[in-house]
Amino acid sequence: MTAPATGRDGTLSPKVEANPRQARAIAWIHRLHDDVTALFERLDGRERFREDAWERAEGGGGWSRVLTDGAVFEKAGINRSVVFGRLPAAAAAKLGGRGVSDGETRFFATGVSLVVHPRSPMVPTVHLNVRYFELHDDDGALRDAWFGGGTDLTPYMPFVEDCAHFHHVLARRCDAFHPSLYRRFKPWCDEYFRNTHRGGEARGVGGVFFDHLRPGEDESGLDLDGAYAFADAIGRSLEEAYAPLVDRRRDLAYGEREKQFQLVRRGRYVEFNLVHDRGTHFGLHTAARIESVLMSLPPLAAWPYAPAWEPGSAEARLLELLRPRDWLAESARVP
Amino acid sequence: MTAPATGRDGTLSPKVEANPRQARAIAWIHRLHDDVTALFERLDGRERFREDAWERAEGGGGWSRVLTDGAVFEKAGINRSVVFGRLPAAAAAKLGGRGVSDGETRFFATGVSLVVHPRSPMVPTVHLNVRYFELHDDDGALRDAWFGGGTDLTPYMPFVEDCAHFHHVLARRCDAFHPSLYRRFKPWCDEYFRNTHRGGEARGVGGVFFDHLRPGEDESGLDLDGAYAFADAIGRSLEEAYAPLVDRRRDLAYGEREKQFQLVRRGRYVEFNLVHDRGTHFGLHTAARIESVLMSLPPLAAWPYAPAWEPGSAEARLLELLRPRDWLAESARVP
Repeated sequence: MTAPATGRDGTLSPKVEANPRQARAIAWIHRLHDDVTALFERLDGRERFREDAWERAEGGGGWSRVLTDGAVFEKAGINRSVVFGRLPAAAAAKLGGRGVSDGETRFFATGVSLVVHPRSPMVPTVHLNVRYFELHDDDGALRDAWFGGGTDLTPYMPFVEDCAHFHHVLARRCDAFHPSLYRRFKPWCDEYFRNTHRGGEARGVGGVFFDHLRPGEDESGLDLDGAYAFADAIGRSLEEAYAPLVDRRRDLAYGEREKQFQLVRRGRYVEFNLVHDRGTHFGLHTAARIESVLMSLPPLAAWPYAPAWEPGSAEARLLELLRPRDWLAESARVP
Repeated sequence: MTAPATGRDGTLSPKVEANPRQARAIAWIHRLHDDVTALFERLDGRERFREDAWERAEGGGGWSRVLTDGAVFEKAGINRSVVFGRLPAAAAAKLGGRGVSDGETRFFATGVSLVVHPRSPMVPTVHLNVRYFELHDDDGALRDAWFGGGTDLTPYMPFVEDCAHFHHVLARRCDAFHPSLYRRFKPWCDEYFRNTHRGGEARGVGGVFFDHLRPGEDESGLDLDGAYAFADAIGRSLEEAYAPLVDRRRDLAYGEREKQFQLVRRGRYVEFNLVHDRGTHFGLHTAARIESVLMSLPPLAAWPYAPAWEPGSAEARLLELLRPRDWLAESARVP
């Protein structure tokens, strides 16, 4: 089958050939992309996303949606991509794929990824990504298939209850599937989003992160339908986990000082994405469209030399929150 | 010997033990650091550099000087470091060192590096680095020693004559030593400072870049004294190559549009330094002081989504200038 042309503004639409197994993943990601886009347009309330479709010479392409200078979001990007082709064995092994032989392996991947940068430092940045990945033979026979993804929050103000709310929602979503999921995927997120070159300072307050979730093989017992449902639940979690934080904080007043701190923290976001993030590196070193890969970078970021914050200040308290903690022990209620 | 305490403000001064061969390099870099600092204080005319000294647990340390919110420079950093210790064989081989055996190799390195970000987009950013590097045995016997360095210009406005001036000065400095130097080191610079993930777009208009310049072994015939003199000439080149550009352009009027373009180009500067620069990676993955390693990042940078510029506009003409060209064929005279 060929995936339908979906450019909302009629732009170029990548052609994708997919077997029924892959077509299911494509259709799932397509629907999720549209629904998440609608959520964030509703949240912003003023601006719309613009869509660019792009093709990847080696196979597949993507649809990048960006909202700029909105009422809430200074820059918001929601990418959908379907990419496939051949990976050298080393690259496939690096992905953690199984059944990789000496030669090249065919891969197929589709996913949604989102990063939104609010203008106000009172509103946190959020990132979300869910994806389906498979390695297969030339005849389409599956060698390995898994789901991956997660979502993490990057606040600029020390609203403990906002961070707790985000985690409480994610824990509930995970627990609806299996009690092991949040317990495993929360620390994985803490471990992943760290600037090791900054003494391990976290990018934000985490959330959940997972990879190589193989249907039928995970300790959660999730089968293919279950894994789809779980990844979809994470993909749709921001309506409950994040939207209330926007509503709570969007109209709070702030000053130059809060804005400056946000710009410095955004600099750390840039450092993580360019130096450490595996997804970004995968994009930089494959032939993906660069503006889509780097859509996650903030509209504006600052690198003052050796910034320091008064003990007890809002900035210092925010930095304290970046140390991994048990967020479920904190109240999510606004004081 | 132990290098003298040199913190200009009396702060911690790294202790360095060095043999006479290394002491010569330390003294050279120390003097150069002071002289280049004085040049940029004179150029700014208002603010002074503040110095932080730092120690590296594994051996050595550095002196970082930063000038912030000056009359000309929004952020200017001039680092000096002396680092030494043991490198695993793989790391030594990656540096391009010779005589590396299976075990660890002792190394010693000292250098100055500078990046200045002017506030005005009419004034270009400049980077300069010179260093002396050696690999030696436990008893101090030399295995390999070389000089490296260079300087490159990153303009924001298409002043062709400024770029030509920079290159004419560098070519003259090089030619005073050997006719092969500029011919080899100019294309090396073009090749090095490229964002390969952006289709090879250059960071700026280049300059010169060299590495592994081994006294007595280079086709230029430079012996140890000659190599010192050449590296020193590059280290001192900005007084003639860059200072006149500051004087020419510092008082030109500009608007929001020029500032915005500068912020976008600075974003590309961040991308190069974090994704590709070998010196930055060496700093990120060794235990160097992170604020000194990332002192090169601009005070403020922007990532608007997929920026585009009108054909024929100043921005489009600047991008044209980023394509490597024979700058000596261009006139350095202001029209």
